[in-house]
Amino acid sequence: MAVVVQKYGGSSVATIEKIKAVAERVIERKKKGDEVVVVVSAMGKTTDHLINMAKEISPNPNRRELDMLMSTGEQVSIALLSIAFQQFGYDAISLTGFQAGILTEGMHTKNRIADVRIENVKKHLDEGKIVIVAGFQGINQFGDITTLGRGGSDTSAVALASKLKCTCEIYTDVEGIYNVDPRMYSDAKKLDNISYEEMMEMASLGAGVMEARAVEIACKYNIPIYVALNTGEKLGTYIKEYDETMENKAITGLTASDDVLMVTIRNVPCKAKSIALIFERIAKYNVNIDMISQTAPLDGYVNVSFTTSKEDIYTIDDITKEIKKEIPTIKVSKELDISKISVVGIGMMKQSGVAAKVFSILSENNIEFKQVTTSEISISYTIDSIDKGRAVTALAKELNL
Amino acid sequence: MAVVVQKYGGSSVATIEKIKAVAERVIERKKKGDEVVVVVSAMGKTTDHLINMAKEISPNPNRRELDMLMSTGEQVSIALLSIAFQQFGYDAISLTGFQAGILTEGMHTKNRIADVRIENVKKHLDEGKIVIVAGFQGINQFGDITTLGRGGSDTSAVALASKLKCTCEIYTDVEGIYNVDPRMYSDAKKLDNISYEEMMEMASLGAGVMEARAVEIACKYNIPIYVALNTGEKLGTYIKEYDETMENKAITGLTASDDVLMVTIRNVPCKAKSIALIFERIAKYNVNIDMISQTAPLDGYVNVSFTTSKEDIYTIDDITKEIKKEIPTIKVSKELDISKISVVGIGMMKQSGVAAKVFSILSENNIEFKQVTTSEISISYTIDSIDKGRAVTALAKELNL
Repeated sequence: MAVVVQKYGGSSVATIEKIKAVAERVIERKKKGDEVVVVVSAMGKTTDHLINMAKEISPNPNRRELDMLMSTGEQVSIALLSIAFQQFGYDAISLTGFQAGILTEGMHTKNRIADVRIENVKKHLDEGKIVIVAGFQGINQFGDITTLGRGGSDTSAVALASKLKCTCEIYTDVEGIYNVDPRMYSDAKKLDNISYEEMMEMASLGAGVMEARAVEIACKYNIPIYVALNTGEKLGTYIKEYDETMENKAITGLTASDDVLMVTIRNVPCKAKSIALIFERIAKYNVNIDMISQTAPLDGYVNVSFTTSKEDIYTIDDITKEIKKEIPTIKVSKELDISKISVVGIGMMKQSGVAAKVFSILSENNIEFKQVTTSEISISYTIDSIDKGRAVTALAKELNL
Repeated sequence: MAVVVQKYGGSSVATIEKIKAVAERVIERKKKGDEVVVVVSAMGKTTDHLINMAKEISPNPNRRELDMLMSTGEQVSIALLSIAFQQFGYDAISLTGFQAGILTEGMHTKNRIADVRIENVKKHLDEGKIVIVAGFQGINQFGDITTLGRGGSDTSAVALASKLKCTCEIYTDVEGIYNVDPRMYSDAKKLDNISYEEMMEMASLGAGVMEARAVEIACKYNIPIYVALNTGEKLGTYIKEYDETMENKAITGLTASDDVLMVTIRNVPCKAKSIALIFERIAKYNVNIDMISQTAPLDGYVNVSFTTSKEDIYTIDDITKEIKKEIPTIKVSKELDISKISVVGIGMMKQSGVAAKVFSILSENNIEFKQVTTSEISISYTIDSIDKGRAVTALAKELNL
């Protein structure tokens, strides 16, 4: 008898009918003799609706209270799904994040899972129940309800699977992981397999299907993730440890992200202390910086540009005000029409010349880039958003994706 | 510096605008130097909406899961209200039932408060915060989220006030406690004061404004309850210990309730054991029986009738099926068109003849009653619902209410 964790996203439980359909699918699996832990997100657009109510009251609502508010969305889903199982004659129990032992740490609305006390889930599984766990949420050391940020339900599912040492199946409204987002490139191909490392890189670079943190946990515990269509009709994608049977191409995938806020701080005195102060302040607020560039010094001043997520725009305002108090010379500007294009492939470790090839493709197409970063298995470029479509098509074609 | 618990019901927080208005009222009080604990219900018809979703899946949803589902309603309200306080510049924190230390026992959807661990609420009050507590909910010894049944938010508020040894103010959409429901009798008068005992009796007999359990807790700890309009414009009603300054009328109030399910079990073998078995089974399911009547034995069989709340109709079906297994002769029928009329007054303890007077008023108006029960300070009659309006008007007029 095997245990499996299945996760269904918001679009899979958007209506009462869809909740019943999820229950039926889980029951099919249970009939095959598996024990199932189901992780669900909030129904459809519930989270957006809740956030909109909060924003009607305050443009920048307190984050602890946002967590309190948003976590109700998943709580509704788990209760309704449990009622559906019982209506179909199956014993089931719903558990909130804290009841499922999901302990978190970090900043409200962006918590990380610190640990999962799996005993309660195991106890109910041992009693033959289908266990339904609210995704996206946990409880911190102060007893406050916390949420895990974007893609948090995937992280919940993978963390539970890691503790249960079982496969984690993520059901969604796409067929699996594509080498390029099919909405941007119609000839994109679905991958049968992808390594943890490539998936982490693609996720953190903007591929919307899976969050990097979820893949990171799966990688750490070597738990396979299977991403597939929520109807179960087609073969999905396995995210697992790299092995030689995987395709040996230099480039596995291409991602593009519009979630780029480029902040430029001009007139920074050209001292190591000033630059350090800027990034210390940013770190203090838990804002993740992606790319950084700096101009050559002129008259003792430099300009520093960095990119971050658009959702940090209010926090960036707070931070830059704080910095201006200590370095009054600075001038801050923000650009929102920036996109990031990245190519990812574990084969890049062995095959050289990928960066050169990408540069030449962009240049042939007259696409200017602002910043470049590379990792062992990826190269990323920021470009003007207006050039994104052309860049994706040109790169996907020339790189045979 | 005094502490006060204020409770606002669902209609007081039905919209974002109303939530802001509640925040402003509480802040006025806070400015006067009081520390405020605010207990809120779910927004408007949220609870009904949640229950309807559950009933779309199952006609008789699992009660633990209903609690899980319903408790989200209050959680949304507390988060939004807290965001409102913070937007107005006041430090506030929302607490769910379990975070506020509200421990419960009993049956899901009908739990009772076993204890309140008040430390967390006190800690936040001491830090100068406005503390917002989700009404209607708590947590039981298994760590399950529980709800307190109808009027549960009042009970939460009074239980918190009892632990904080302070007044509990209940703000609602009526001006206070009336001697007769004004919707049934337009000449009804608002009471300035009512004793705990009379209020408990009126509440348990169907006066909708306050739940009996809430008043019982206030009585036990001698905490005054003030019931008033949520705009604060008019003087409300104090529910407090009886004293001689209160009106010395035989009858303080009249209540009428349609929440009566009359169950008749025919062909019960005329043995003490059979009757005992029926009421043992009912007790096992935590169903509260109100009135009981029994016909004279005929051929060794009796008919037993009892009344209970309409919300127990499904449980009654389960119970009578179980009883039928052990006493196969019985036939069960249920009547739903029954109302209960009660007159209540602490003065009845001293003044005799109230029962006789009520009987004669009903009889003069050709109103037949089915069952009668009396307590020290009340007399109740079940009648056909069709006679209710006539009975209320006749009794209210003749008894000068």
